[in-house]
Amino acid sequence: MEIEEIKELIQTKKFNKLKNELKEMNGVDIPSLLEELDKETLVKVFRILSKEQAGEAFSYMETDMQERLIQDLTDKELKNVIDELFMDDTVDLIEEMPSNVVKRILRAVDVNDRKTINELLKYPDDSAGSIMTTEFVDLKEDMTVEEALERIRTIGLDSETIYNCYVLNKNRILVGILNIKEILISKSNIEIKNLMTTNIISVHTLEDQEEVAKKFDKYDYYALPVVDNENRLVGIITVDDAINVLQDEVSEDFEIMAAMQPNEKGYFETSVFTHAKKRIVWLLILMLSATLTGAIITKYENAFAAVPLLVAFIPMIMDTGGNCGSQSSTLIIRGLATDEIEVKEVFKVLWKEIRVSLIVGIVLAAVNGIRIFLQYKNLQMAFIVGLTLVATVALSKTLGCLLPLLAKKLKLDPAIMAAPLITTLVDTFSILIYFQIATAIIGRNIKIRIIPDFFSSLQIC
Amino acid sequence: MEIEEIKELIQTKKFNKLKNELKEMNGVDIPSLLEELDKETLVKVFRILSKEQAGEAFSYMETDMQERLIQDLTDKELKNVIDELFMDDTVDLIEEMPSNVVKRILRAVDVNDRKTINELLKYPDDSAGSIMTTEFVDLKEDMTVEEALERIRTIGLDSETIYNCYVLNKNRILVGILNIKEILISKSNIEIKNLMTTNIISVHTLEDQEEVAKKFDKYDYYALPVVDNENRLVGIITVDDAINVLQDEVSEDFEIMAAMQPNEKGYFETSVFTHAKKRIVWLLILMLSATLTGAIITKYENAFAAVPLLVAFIPMIMDTGGNCGSQSSTLIIRGLATDEIEVKEVFKVLWKEIRVSLIVGIVLAAVNGIRIFLQYKNLQMAFIVGLTLVATVALSKTLGCLLPLLAKKLKLDPAIMAAPLITTLVDTFSILIYFQIATAIIGRNIKIRIIPDFFSSLQIC
Repeated sequence: MEIEEIKELIQTKKFNKLKNELKEMNGVDIPSLLEELDKETLVKVFRILSKEQAGEAFSYMETDMQERLIQDLTDKELKNVIDELFMDDTVDLIEEMPSNVVKRILRAVDVNDRKTINELLKYPDDSAGSIMTTEFVDLKEDMTVEEALERIRTIGLDSETIYNCYVLNKNRILVGILNIKEILISKSNIEIKNLMTTNIISVHTLEDQEEVAKKFDKYDYYALPVVDNENRLVGIITVDDAINVLQDEVSEDFEIMAAMQPNEKGYFETSVFTHAKKRIVWLLILMLSATLTGAIITKYENAFAAVPLLVAFIPMIMDTGGNCGSQSSTLIIRGLATDEIEVKEVFKVLWKEIRVSLIVGIVLAAVNGIRIFLQYKNLQMAFIVGLTLVATVALSKTLGCLLPLLAKKLKLDPAIMAAPLITTLVDTFSILIYFQIATAIIGRNIKIRIIPDFFSSLQIC
Repeated sequence: MEIEEIKELIQTKKFNKLKNELKEMNGVDIPSLLEELDKETLVKVFRILSKEQAGEAFSYMETDMQERLIQDLTDKELKNVIDELFMDDTVDLIEEMPSNVVKRILRAVDVNDRKTINELLKYPDDSAGSIMTTEFVDLKEDMTVEEALERIRTIGLDSETIYNCYVLNKNRILVGILNIKEILISKSNIEIKNLMTTNIISVHTLEDQEEVAKKFDKYDYYALPVVDNENRLVGIITVDDAINVLQDEVSEDFEIMAAMQPNEKGYFETSVFTHAKKRIVWLLILMLSATLTGAIITKYENAFAAVPLLVAFIPMIMDTGGNCGSQSSTLIIRGLATDEIEVKEVFKVLWKEIRVSLIVGIVLAAVNGIRIFLQYKNLQMAFIVGLTLVATVALSKTLGCLLPLLAKKLKLDPAIMAAPLITTLVDTFSILIYFQIATAIIGRNIKIRIIPDFFSSLQIC
């Protein structure tokens, strides 16, 4: 359905036709359709949606559309929407809305739910507690399959998932898990305790959401139970929320690895000023660090004044070192994020990277040596640059693999040790290596040596 | 359970104790436990596992452990393992094993399954067909809830998920979807056609797996139906496989963005030689491209021979340009990957980046200008470097946002246009801008101008 069609149906007051066409749509797709409507038409279309569809569409809207809409809904309509939301979505909504809207929302939920919401709001950001929902199927050990099915029928409609069922004892401690498949295919008089598994994979309310998402990736569950210190079941996290966490964490890693402060909002939702602020801190740090490389270059002023060709290879050496370092650091950072690489494997990683860097360094040096010799007929320079490349590649790959592992060991985010920081570090060392090798080979006493290149630079006198 | 404990229990032949301890474990966790066992002990422990646990553990093993194990299993044992696997896991296994092992596996599956496996093997890599499984719950429109439950009980045990049920007409065309919750809470005489939704989100067998994973992220389903050209249901993809695809695609993006050729195998599984090969191609391309920047520098030999201080700022300008460019390109590449940014929004993106770059450029220029003035008391140089920074930041952010969008438009992978390539491009332009500004301000006729810095460089004469 196209936006123009909606506008026309609203204008010509063909509400029934609109209702039927909207009914064919998935609630998830409705927000992007409504994006371009003005405030007045937005609320009109929203009112036409069925209760279920309105709830689903609402939960997928961006924050500003939700806010605009709530302002125009009556208290009754707002209550209908909130009733359709799962507890975790309601809590998310409350966390994003301004306080006057929050008051209206809280007035729209009933007393019991308000208590639960207040509990959920207390969990720290990024904890399992902050993304869990409290609507799940709880069973008792001594229930029969028939009784369990009856219980599922009663509370199933309001549960976010009925696929996994959780068996609690009388203190609400989680003692077993089973899934609906096992219940359905069993005889009606079998007791739940004979079907459930006691080998429980659960997460703690305060566990980091990234760890939770990793458990989903590892164990392939549709939902994971969340327990408190006493092992009481307080909520569940469903796999769709875990996917969102995975995606958010990946985006965060990308941002940090490109020298930005992470930003929870979307690209277009973020203001120009905030974008600038998130990017400028690291740029300043890296810019000022790069002056160290500049200072080193200044030290060798005499060398490149004597052999100006030396300067021509600075960009190539810097770029190659940076690229080599960021290849290694990227692989290690990603390996750490997916638990494929562990900190204790540092020597295994180092030994691998050193061998890789030797192959890579020698190939690069050879190709580049041939090029320099063909272009400048200068064997000495080919040798200097080649030797520098081998050393730079080895150093950058070593730093590139060690620094993320060190960061992880120090409980810092390994993603900080990505291309930008590695590049700046490697630059400094590679320039130092370059000029050391150059002066050693061309002759330490460069001040008094007269070499052909030098004469050409004398034309400026 | 620790590896040492297993070894001891095997040596002291306490098989029953081992069996009971293993029973408490999740099948997913068993492969990493078995990793350090020798071949002989490995197969001993594997034989102790229950049939279900053995199947689950097997499906989570790395390829080489699976191969080692199959060699030692009898045909009967192999058949038991294969029987426990879902069709998509069997197909994955066949794709990874050498041909002699494949023959044994195919002999272990029964005739009907062999036909299905051969069909599945025909789908191209990375297509929906290649990751789907054929074990799902199919219902008919005119079944009652009671009949549907009976059908689920019959085929449910072998289905990968029973949460979503698929309604087919007599030509096996997918006409509706409903989930087990809706069936369970409905009266037993209601017909399925009155419960199912006809608003179907499905994927085509040849659809790219990345697009499939995005649909999971968007619609929050546990499974998606896969249909052929005639809209017949041929399989389903479950959310756990979608998570694997998402993670693989992210790893691939990370690798491409760090100038590597993507690698499907893990870090440690990949040989040193393959690692080197995957990294060297882009390093060579970028290294040779960087010589262009070198050539530009050579053109301005006279300028830096006259004012050697000019060389000192080259690393800082190059690094800052590269970092700014990679910030923008990273945001755009990630935005394109998550469908947050679309190619048609190019002007919206450009306008945002230009404004961000002005703020960032001016702040960096100011901070750096003050530093240069304090350090060198050289206002002219502070001005030259400052102006270069503003221009470089604007250029790099423009290139950083436009190139990934251009790549997407040209149906290339936007991830190519990441830090390494952008850095190399921006280097060339920023050095050009720098020396242009420098020579314009210090004086075009630098060859004959005598400025104070020049005298200090004369000490080499």
